[in-house]
Amino acid sequence: MQRTDLAELGEFGLIERIKKNTETVQPSTIVGIGDDAAVIDSGSHYTLVATDMLVEGIHFDLSYTPLKHLGYKAVAVNISDIAAMNGFPKQITVSIGLSNRFSVEAVDEIYEGIHAACKNYKVDLVGGDTASSKSGLIISVTAIGEVPKEAVTYRKGAQPNDVLCATGDLGAAYFGLQILEREKQVFMENPNMRPELKEHEYLVGRQLRPEGRTDIIHELKERNVVPTSMIDISDGLASEILHLSQHSGMGFSVFVDNLPIENSTLLAAEEFKVNPITAVVNGGEDYELLMTISQKDYEEIKGIPEITPIGFVTKEKNNILVTKSGEHVQINAQGWKHLENS
Amino acid sequence: MQRTDLAELGEFGLIERIKKNTETVQPSTIVGIGDDAAVIDSGSHYTLVATDMLVEGIHFDLSYTPLKHLGYKAVAVNISDIAAMNGFPKQITVSIGLSNRFSVEAVDEIYEGIHAACKNYKVDLVGGDTASSKSGLIISVTAIGEVPKEAVTYRKGAQPNDVLCATGDLGAAYFGLQILEREKQVFMENPNMRPELKEHEYLVGRQLRPEGRTDIIHELKERNVVPTSMIDISDGLASEILHLSQHSGMGFSVFVDNLPIENSTLLAAEEFKVNPITAVVNGGEDYELLMTISQKDYEEIKGIPEITPIGFVTKEKNNILVTKSGEHVQINAQGWKHLENS
Repeated sequence: MQRTDLAELGEFGLIERIKKNTETVQPSTIVGIGDDAAVIDSGSHYTLVATDMLVEGIHFDLSYTPLKHLGYKAVAVNISDIAAMNGFPKQITVSIGLSNRFSVEAVDEIYEGIHAACKNYKVDLVGGDTASSKSGLIISVTAIGEVPKEAVTYRKGAQPNDVLCATGDLGAAYFGLQILEREKQVFMENPNMRPELKEHEYLVGRQLRPEGRTDIIHELKERNVVPTSMIDISDGLASEILHLSQHSGMGFSVFVDNLPIENSTLLAAEEFKVNPITAVVNGGEDYELLMTISQKDYEEIKGIPEITPIGFVTKEKNNILVTKSGEHVQINAQGWKHLENS
Repeated sequence: MQRTDLAELGEFGLIERIKKNTETVQPSTIVGIGDDAAVIDSGSHYTLVATDMLVEGIHFDLSYTPLKHLGYKAVAVNISDIAAMNGFPKQITVSIGLSNRFSVEAVDEIYEGIHAACKNYKVDLVGGDTASSKSGLIISVTAIGEVPKEAVTYRKGAQPNDVLCATGDLGAAYFGLQILEREKQVFMENPNMRPELKEHEYLVGRQLRPEGRTDIIHELKERNVVPTSMIDISDGLASEILHLSQHSGMGFSVFVDNLPIENSTLLAAEEFKVNPITAVVNGGEDYELLMTISQKDYEEIKGIPEITPIGFVTKEKNNILVTKSGEHVQINAQGWKHLENS
């Protein structure tokens, strides 16, 4: 029998393969696999469903991840997916796989974080499952949200000349992770050393305790603005641009000089000798929103400080970074590598 | 810091602990943690959400579980939870954690089973997540269903003199597991021996490829009958009786002689020298439905061959098995032990 390694296919390849073999028959299924959340017709509105699984050793390292933050993050990343459809989260379910090494008190800490996120995002924990696990910790969260039918925002829908906007700042979570990994190494070599995280509090916080940007969805709603397309920035800007491009059939021009990057991110980039743009473009885990706004609507939202215009949509399906000097750098799956060399 | 072992608390204890600390604030949250599925108000109907996580080495053993069956079962057990609320499943999401030892072809087999279940239950696979896992295989499924508001059925609601009914037959899945475990031992001692599963096909099938009883929900709907309470039988009859009793505040009398047990289950019980009632009461994984029906409605459904009356509801909160000889055996968490000794 043939054996193809999963690594050969990659995560996106695997999702494509699953999607290709999936048909939908329920009239209430509006959108299935392939966007940030599934869209289900509930009569008066659309119900949104998003799910994410966090696995110990893959998505988090308990040697530097406080359990409370982990619980919070497991919820926040799903909230982010609901926000990316222009919706508001309402309920979550949490399934958790636990090995014997976890105590009741440890589980309490995880749920403290989950409850803190529920409180912050005004969502209800309505169910889940608790299972044993032979090895590590697994947290699988499903978020259920709502969006008015006329406001649902997909990855498709971007139109030529729309303004490409990003929320918050980018690249910080990447350096947060680098700092945590470095301090872990230092600690392992000399357990008497105390980790120096205080001065990098912002970056570390962005990695350990990201937020889903429902605040932005409220801002858009107040101004009656519906983005033409949207996605959350979980795998780095390049990956998300390519998703929007593929779904919308449009191209994107991004001005490097406009990218929202915090000072602390720039300082860390210098410390780690990494181009900060690389962190933004390929870093991941920022959980900000990337959206396209029609020229007409852009006037309405340009006063929102947390939204930055970073480029525009082009009819030609060509995705480029425009550097300060006017140079064009192709955005592709390895876009950051080209940039490193440029 | 205090350290309490999870084993001390147990799964139900842990769920109670989580539930106790959980408040709900969304007006659309009708029922949260504590029933077979969460109930969310979607305006014209209720949306049901159920979720279950299957972990390798805990819930399944890949040495005798075909991947296709595993995919099917992961869906079916969630369908069962939606059915237990008197609802129909509409969509599922599937999150899967995979280690490197799984090939693309292996993943295809799992999804073949998932797709087969989707086709059988007419549900759409609408999303999910694919993650790496350092050790085994993890499948987390969330099912989304619908139920008319007037038809939703909870664990609470049983009334005195209601007829307690079970669907299908009970105890088979328990012996299916015993057979699989035995053949595994035989095979490990002598890899040239071929497992003898053919003669136990029914029992093994009940363990490896259970069904959610949506067919029963259709039957009830056709007859305009809404059970007064319902739960699915996943942890053995005793456990489910105690849940109905606790939620409804009623007692249950179960006639041992009425329990629906297949001939092959009785034969296996003899072979394994286990009281078949023990398998029914404490075995688990039958994924049948346990429901209470008002006397008035019972007339409507008593012609359905897949529904068996096994007892009745009493005002006094006392749960008993009535043996053939008229002896009363208390049903409690260790109910089967008493029975073993009797």
